[in-house]
Amino acid sequence: MSTAQHDVTSTANLNRRDHGLDVLAKIDGHAGTSVIDSLTDVSPALGHHVAAFAFGDIYDRPGLDARSRQLVTIGVLTALGGCEPQLKVHVGAALNVGLTPDEIVEAMLHAAVYAGFPRALNATFAAKEIFESRGVRPSSAAASSR
Amino acid sequence: MSTAQHDVTSTANLNRRDHGLDVLAKIDGHAGTSVIDSLTDVSPALGHHVAAFAFGDIYDRPGLDARSRQLVTIGVLTALGGCEPQLKVHVGAALNVGLTPDEIVEAMLHAAVYAGFPRALNATFAAKEIFESRGVRPSSAAASSR
Amino acid sequence: MSTAQHDVTSTANLNRRDHGLDVLAKIDGHAGTSVIDSLTDVSPALGHHVAAFAFGDIYDRPGLDARSRQLVTIGVLTALGGCEPQLKVHVGAALNVGLTPDEIVEAMLHAAVYAGFPRALNATFAAKEIFESRGVRPSSAAASSR
Amino acid sequence: MSTAQHDVTSTANLNRRDHGLDVLAKIDGHAGTSVIDSLTDVSPALGHHVAAFAFGDIYDRPGLDARSRQLVTIGVLTALGGCEPQLKVHVGAALNVGLTPDEIVEAMLHAAVYAGFPRALNATFAAKEIFESRGVRPSSAAASSR
Amino acid sequence: MSTAQHDVTSTANLNRRDHGLDVLAKIDGHAGTSVIDSLTDVSPALGHHVAAFAFGDIYDRPGLDARSRQLVTIGVLTALGGCEPQLKVHVGAALNVGLTPDEIVEAMLHAAVYAGFPRALNATFAAKEIFESRGVRPSSAAASSR
Amino acid sequence: MSTAQHDVTSTANLNRRDHGLDVLAKIDGHAGTSVIDSLTDVSPALGHHVAAFAFGDIYDRPGLDARSRQLVTIGVLTALGGCEPQLKVHVGAALNVGLTPDEIVEAMLHAAVYAGFPRALNATFAAKEIFESRGVRPSSAAASSR
Repeated sequence: MSTAQHDVTSTANLNRRDHGLDVLAKIDGHAGTSVIDSLTDVSPALGHHVAAFAFGDIYDRPGLDARSRQLVTIGVLTALGGCEPQLKVHVGAALNVGLTPDEIVEAMLHAAVYAGFPRALNATFAAKEIFESRGVRPSSAAASSR
Repeated sequence: MSTAQHDVTSTANLNRRDHGLDVLAKIDGHAGTSVIDSLTDVSPALGHHVAAFAFGDIYDRPGLDARSRQLVTIGVLTALGGCEPQLKVHVGAALNVGLTPDEIVEAMLHAAVYAGFPRALNATFAAKEIFESRGVRPSSAAASSR
Repeated sequence: MSTAQHDVTSTANLNRRDHGLDVLAKIDGHAGTSVIDSLTDVSPALGHHVAAFAFGDIYDRPGLDARSRQLVTIGVLTALGGCEPQLKVHVGAALNVGLTPDEIVEAMLHAAVYAGFPRALNATFAAKEIFESRGVRPSSAAASSR
Repeated sequence: MSTAQHDVTSTANLNRRDHGLDVLAKIDGHAGTSVIDSLTDVSPALGHHVAAFAFGDIYDRPGLDARSRQLVTIGVLTALGGCEPQLKVHVGAALNVGLTPDEIVEAMLHAAVYAGFPRALNATFAAKEIFESRGVRPSSAAASSR
Repeated sequence: MSTAQHDVTSTANLNRRDHGLDVLAKIDGHAGTSVIDSLTDVSPALGHHVAAFAFGDIYDRPGLDARSRQLVTIGVLTALGGCEPQLKVHVGAALNVGLTPDEIVEAMLHAAVYAGFPRALNATFAAKEIFESRGVRPSSAAASSR
Repeated sequence: MSTAQHDVTSTANLNRRDHGLDVLAKIDGHAGTSVIDSLTDVSPALGHHVAAFAFGDIYDRPGLDARSRQLVTIGVLTALGGCEPQLKVHVGAALNVGLTPDEIVEAMLHAAVYAGFPRALNATFAAKEIFESRGVRPSSAAASSR
């Protein structure tokens, strides 16, 4: 008999969730888990599925390495627009998995071709905030003309 | 002879507008009418058409009850993204017409499947603000795991 | 020890998937399962998660009845645009769970206020195709002026 | 006493509609009215509001001339994406109100900066279809390099 | 031999860039150049291409006059959503090239038909901020009903 | 004196364009150049800037390798929606630069988390067409449950 999945307290679902929280903590550190925490008093079910599905089921699949997943994620979030809070979390995650600030802003410049300059500008200014909070910046940023 | 509609001071058009303002006040209370008021010194024509068309012509049609209209509206605004100000007005309206906080956050979780988690997260945090200002919250929010 | 979720052949995950396929078949009939089938030779993992997550985890949650979920879904898909194939599946599903053709086109007219007329037109023509294949049509469609 | 607007058969509303149909026929010719006609057997209410509101109330307002309205419309429809059917109607309308093929493709190239090249390409290919059906083409199209 | 374009310090590319900065300063004044400046320490390459491509290559092309380009730009940015910072720059630019406040808010009202009222509202409130900072306002805004 | 960039026949601009056409041919083969060719009789200026800017200026920059650029591009195009023609070109390009069919569909599954399942489904079916025309398919597609 199949069990209704909305029984999120079954052992299997708590395992999925805990696994997702592990993945999330490893990739995003505090920024990711604080999103889940901030959902506790409004939509814990949404928090459960961000952890169990987005991170537990998808993020940790073997088909793409963490660096590749962040490149796709940055592309998607830049294109969607209006996702600056999520983009900031994932710029931090991108740094955590080894993308450099230069690569991150290059990906956003690349996205400008397809999603337009305003989306690229908004994404780049979101990245700038994270870079500053981490005390890093693109090496290209020192040169005046490029 | 047909009258140009931009004669918004004709009796017929003032009637449409006044009817819309009645509908708006009944559904959204102060939040809705303050949007119209804030347009007075920049685009009163936009305010006119929000009242006359959106609320007078469409919102009050008999084909769907108020609860159903709010479910559609929450789906649309969650999916569009960048419409948090409008979403807040309509979360308030949704509560006014009888949707519960649990149903509202459930609708946003449901929308995550189709419009992605970032849109659902932004919508849910907008809802959270309204819930807090009303002193309500989802019953599911008390439980720790769901 | 938490098990990596990408082990989609674990008993727990096969249960989620089978449960989702049951929900999907009940709501969408052949239209839904044929989408999953068409993924078999390109991205069975995507098919797995549509079944296990979208239908198994979310669709069947108790917080909103099936009719309400379809109203939200129609709102989201109308607003996104470019999702006509998915909209056709869900218009069929909406009919299956008891929404009338009149209510479906009314929801799309309602969405026009927020997502604009082109999105509403594309959605309505998608609905028209499904209505015709089912041999139904809105009762309002008989009257000439409305 | 304000009359519910969904009484679309009131004299005032039939006037708005008839006025809109006049505007539509003048701007878009057959392409526009055939959209309204195609709605008759699925959502005549949507057809009513496209005519009465979009064309009767908004299109004919004095604040912008017809040429300016088409420039805005082409910008909006290019940016939205997935609105190629509506874009084709409005490319025809743009020609009708005096925009040249060169100006139309220039507007779409301009939109590429903000909405990205894929949106501009889709819009331009939609325009190409209309140009061919009208037997016109941009003068710049004869030159090989520009 | 063709030279890789990422050599942005070639004479030809510095010319494109300088030309773009001239166009930008003429159209947008300080608002535009301050965007480029704010990119210096995060993504100077993005700043280069906004100047060289968006303004140098596209904005100054002869096919559409400056007023027409702003109408298209306002349409695109209203439709995209989430581009309020860019919209504010271009509302200023629109005023600089001779569009009146009345025409700007009319273009946004027009866009509501295609992109929905929430997008039009967000755009109009962005315009309101710029109007206030410039000490201008639509003449229609003085009248109470329109 | 800076030269107006719309003089696309200057030596510098023809060099940018030729360089872009080389990059495009190397990455996309016939699919890319046929897009440029199809613009010749409608908007050669758009074709010029796709070649000169998108491929000559941006695609060939050193900051990200070709594989990374395709991952970002697939993310952006999946998220935008309605860009299936462009997505097909870039799925072909992704195969050309060494991404495997498994990695491409995995990137689209990953995008589902952020942009929703309908966008991921549309992208995956576009990829399926290209895989079939190339005679390749994901290795995971042979297995029945994943």
